[in-house]
Amino acid sequence: MTLLLKNFLLCDGGTETARYGSVMVEGGKIASIGAPEWAPPAAETVDGRGKAALLPGFVNAHTHAAMSLLRGIGEEAPLMEWLKEKIWPAEAKLKGEHVSWGTKLALLEMAANGITAFGDMYFFMDSVVEASLEMGMKCAVSRGIVGPEQVKLDEGLQLAETWKGREEFVTVQLAPHAPYTVPLSFLKEIVAAAKDRNLGIHFHFLEAEWETGYLRDEMKMTPAEYLAASGMPEVRQAVLAHCVWLDPAVLDEVDFSRMTIAHNPKSNQKLGSGMMDLPGMMEKTRKIALGTDGAASNNRLDVWGEMRSAALVSKGISKDPTAVPARDVLRMATFEGAEALGFEKKGMIREGWAADFVMVDLDRPEYVGIDGENAAHFFVYAGSSADVTGTMVAGKWLYRDGNFPGADAEKILAKAREMRDNLLKG
Amino acid sequence: MTLLLKNFLLCDGGTETARYGSVMVEGGKIASIGAPEWAPPAAETVDGRGKAALLPGFVNAHTHAAMSLLRGIGEEAPLMEWLKEKIWPAEAKLKGEHVSWGTKLALLEMAANGITAFGDMYFFMDSVVEASLEMGMKCAVSRGIVGPEQVKLDEGLQLAETWKGREEFVTVQLAPHAPYTVPLSFLKEIVAAAKDRNLGIHFHFLEAEWETGYLRDEMKMTPAEYLAASGMPEVRQAVLAHCVWLDPAVLDEVDFSRMTIAHNPKSNQKLGSGMMDLPGMMEKTRKIALGTDGAASNNRLDVWGEMRSAALVSKGISKDPTAVPARDVLRMATFEGAEALGFEKKGMIREGWAADFVMVDLDRPEYVGIDGENAAHFFVYAGSSADVTGTMVAGKWLYRDGNFPGADAEKILAKAREMRDNLLKG
Repeated sequence: MTLLLKNFLLCDGGTETARYGSVMVEGGKIASIGAPEWAPPAAETVDGRGKAALLPGFVNAHTHAAMSLLRGIGEEAPLMEWLKEKIWPAEAKLKGEHVSWGTKLALLEMAANGITAFGDMYFFMDSVVEASLEMGMKCAVSRGIVGPEQVKLDEGLQLAETWKGREEFVTVQLAPHAPYTVPLSFLKEIVAAAKDRNLGIHFHFLEAEWETGYLRDEMKMTPAEYLAASGMPEVRQAVLAHCVWLDPAVLDEVDFSRMTIAHNPKSNQKLGSGMMDLPGMMEKTRKIALGTDGAASNNRLDVWGEMRSAALVSKGISKDPTAVPARDVLRMATFEGAEALGFEKKGMIREGWAADFVMVDLDRPEYVGIDGENAAHFFVYAGSSADVTGTMVAGKWLYRDGNFPGADAEKILAKAREMRDNLLKG
Repeated sequence: MTLLLKNFLLCDGGTETARYGSVMVEGGKIASIGAPEWAPPAAETVDGRGKAALLPGFVNAHTHAAMSLLRGIGEEAPLMEWLKEKIWPAEAKLKGEHVSWGTKLALLEMAANGITAFGDMYFFMDSVVEASLEMGMKCAVSRGIVGPEQVKLDEGLQLAETWKGREEFVTVQLAPHAPYTVPLSFLKEIVAAAKDRNLGIHFHFLEAEWETGYLRDEMKMTPAEYLAASGMPEVRQAVLAHCVWLDPAVLDEVDFSRMTIAHNPKSNQKLGSGMMDLPGMMEKTRKIALGTDGAASNNRLDVWGEMRSAALVSKGISKDPTAVPARDVLRMATFEGAEALGFEKKGMIREGWAADFVMVDLDRPEYVGIDGENAAHFFVYAGSSADVTGTMVAGKWLYRDGNFPGADAEKILAKAREMRDNLLKG
């Protein structure tokens, strides 16, 4: 089965100029790339007529998908009040069924917004994988581990066993929750287990300001000493979510070559956590990805918004309009996210790479004037999820013109409403 | 001709809870409001089936619509380089034809994003009014005045004469450009002319940090002294765009009761101008509206994004998740904008008020869980222009399900591309 995507503006993140071309898809991969008017035989052809673009599919590097059921509860409350009075009581009632339908709800939203893979740290992770595979989306899953609870680590390890061999669609990480919820001795065990099995790590790090005080006063360690002591720099790949209060200078003090920062600008803003120094981080590393965090603290599962926020807020705070260029942000939203989550050959439009795309309608007022040179600027500063006409993963459409070919959207919305009522009113 | 909008979630800005109801529209106004299942005789009925919402139409309080032709030029450049090398040379070539098609292009985008009125300071303003009336949108227009150029003031006054009596759709302000482009003596003349003719003022104030130094060093005045000296506090209504570097304490020192701050968070960020202290301003005044600024510095003409940015960035910077509540932001985006631009009885869903609405599809993943209590939170934090299914002004649809009943969108896009090429390559 061959599919020719013909005469599209092809726009990767990074420094290369976008160009018009055509992409032949076969077996879930980009088989070859040709000129705009290329016309080889193909079972199916979609003609962009020069008025549509293909971007590598977006990657949501850090989320808790099933929190889509908890959107809008306890808004505008201080963090600990929000957690203790709203989120934790609801989460305590979560069963696999809730996580399954909550994830399916999130998958609809993410697919419509051009997301092709997501990194999810939550509970009942087999339900997350099953929902994701059913929809056809790629997922990087990790069972959140708090306290020295061996059973949760065992669940994480079992998850890796269960989904071994499905790495094109499912990668598994071990997920110690955060410095303040996992004792260092147990963190070391988790990290050692990850190294042992060649698994990645997914970790919340320095989201709130008080966490830096916690490391200093309780652990008597600097952030660099703490990371080094944990062993995390030596795992295959670690995702450090948030890092709002991580001084970029720390990246000189400890080996960050296998660590990616998952930057969640809108969630950090909404919870009042603060503003990560993105321009400072970019001086130290290219390994920065973008995440939405959960829908209870954002409240959109939409990488377009994270791109724009990351690019604009940094300029405003630094008072430097040259800070955080659009091309770098687009790379974070695609290639760097895929790398962080352990998906190989994903996030660039290259021969042999995954046929994971966002299809964008350029025949709209927002895109008058787009060309190869300025394309990334148009997508980051002027684009939005309203422009997405298709989302493809491994050669299959998850979303196309308002419809979800692989999902019963009406049923998912109805079941999600039922699950939400059950959690909040039951 | 009566139109019944039946069984919608009706959500105003401000402190009131949203409620389900029906709205009877007649003669461009809200004739009456009834229960969700109300079924009076009506020439036409649109049934929201409880799965759609009506919000008062958004007001874009500060823009330069025709700059839609200049989107994406000179991206990520320092402000003065951007102005001198890109924007000003292009603007020097502007003719009425460019402004006309550029405004039409912006009108398509604004209508699709739920905007029902806009405040425009630019050149060839009769072209702006004609384009706006042709589309059916409300406009508040002002001819930008720089230097002691009497001819530009005269043009502004002529504009007011020309469109007198059309106040439901067209209001006119006088627009001294900024403190650094208009000598104080001439500013006083402009303000006196506005008072004389009962016109409003539209003025750029303290957008960039160096402007505070300019007032101090060149004018030997504090911002409060400068505003008082100009006479602006006594005009019918003044819109002060930006105010990034206006200390909220100044609002105690000079009468702000007839001045509205037009907050443009995304443009201020993108140009590296800085971050206005919105929480601080809200302690001093409720008269704060939202603007997109021109598409060359934003790059979206989309009040949804301004609402979200205003609400989120303030929380992140202040590290206070209770700062800038969604309900206040929705009020800024609707009622306060209408008040600022001189449109009466617009921006709330009330009997006798303008039938200007955004219709929002709630049967989407983002809105699972919305109710009367949390509606404003859902719209500000989770909503987007992708959810807009209709935009109505004075009882007529400007936008409905992807179409523009009053505009030839295809022709406008084609002409806008031609005008852009003519400006940039001609």
